[in-house]
Amino acid sequence: MENVISSRDIQVERKHFFLEFRENDRGRFLRITEEAHGRRNTVIIPSTGLAEFQQALNEVCDESGL
Amino acid sequence: MENVISSRDIQVERKHFFLEFRENDRGRFLRITEEAHGRRNTVIIPSTGLAEFQQALNEVCDESGL
Repeated sequence: MENVISSRDIQVERKHFFLEFRENDRGRFLRITEEAHGRRNTVIIPSTGLAEFQQALNEVCDESGL
Repeated sequence: MENVISSRDIQVERKHFFLEFRENDRGRFLRITEEAHGRRNTVIIPSTGLAEFQQALNEVCDESGL
């Protein structure tokens, strides 16, 4: 059994992204899915590393002038 | 030709994540790679949607109590 706790869908150019914070018997995690041209790619970040992931993302964006 | 403008590597449990802001002839984008058990998964977010992606990530984390 797997529950979706919170989610957002966004479209960027021809891609759709699905951000889903989910929970199952093994724990909580963020699933990021990219869908484009009928193909899907997914990365899964355990909740234990999500704060660090957010920080890394913010730093990379800041350094890149975004 | 592809340039890495900024990057971060983080480890979460048994996974490695590579966040790379890159630039090539077609534009700028963030590449998120997850590596675990010898397998790699990647999603690529065009820079035009990166602010929206950051906001969506922050909202999902906030709503999930992180």
